[in-house]
Amino acid sequence: MIIYKDSEIYIEAEDSQLPWLKIFTQEPFKELGDMPKELRSKLWEVYDIVEFYMNFHYKPTKINMASFGNVLPRVHIHIIARFENDNYFPNPVWGKKLRDTKLNLPSAEKFHKELHAALSNQFTSLQSDRRKSSSERRREKD
Amino acid sequence: MIIYKDSEIYIEAEDSQLPWLKIFTQEPFKELGDMPKELRSKLWEVYDIVEFYMNFHYKPTKINMASFGNVLPRVHIHIIARFENDNYFPNPVWGKKLRDTKLNLPSAEKFHKELHAALSNQFTSLQSDRRKSSSERRREKD
Repeated sequence: MIIYKDSEIYIEAEDSQLPWLKIFTQEPFKELGDMPKELRSKLWEVYDIVEFYMNFHYKPTKINMASFGNVLPRVHIHIIARFENDNYFPNPVWGKKLRDTKLNLPSAEKFHKELHAALSNQFTSLQSDRRKSSSERRREKD
Repeated sequence: MIIYKDSEIYIEAEDSQLPWLKIFTQEPFKELGDMPKELRSKLWEVYDIVEFYMNFHYKPTKINMASFGNVLPRVHIHIIARFENDNYFPNPVWGKKLRDTKLNLPSAEKFHKELHAALSNQFTSLQSDRRKSSSERRREKD
């Protein structure tokens, strides 16, 4: 499911027990270093907003981030909220499964909706010259 | 083994069949979003230089990047050169081992030495106002 898109990037939700999003660039690149510098800056700015809202909504034990692309050599960033009782913790979700827990997590719908609003506001609103810094975002939520 | 350090970051080489480095910040942070913006920019600039030299020396099939910190909640970035005949490919190195290959790779010593020189030149030389852009680096190596 696509939860956000603009002319340069889109974000897909992975079907998982965990809050797990993937950031793609619209134009494919093999490695991070192949991307234009401006797009890389935007990618990390998007990552920052996703991480912020993931922490805010789920209060996870840890955020995990990864970029592989071994099967399809196209940069995309995985962002996963991890909990100490999730099925793989403390292993990466690509590692050995350790248990079978039913997690009782807050609604993904609300998370996706607020994240979409924050990203739209930052990147696609008419007031695009009014970008918020991370510290402003933190102050508002505190 | 530490292959580079300055006042803000250090880079450790993992003991592996693969070229595998880990970038740490000297000051520990739980999540990427907890780091000051300037340090995050530097982290991605360091990542960019590591990726460039890894590609240049090893011509890997793909570069993999990850940040977990589930056991010790302290941001550090893994950067791993992957080859289509390595023991785990196309799985992440945290996934299922698929074969037992002896890889015949170029010298790590030369890679570490050139990477150290590039990072020192960028971040710790007296001419620190003379930072190279990625495109300048590419032009010189081409």
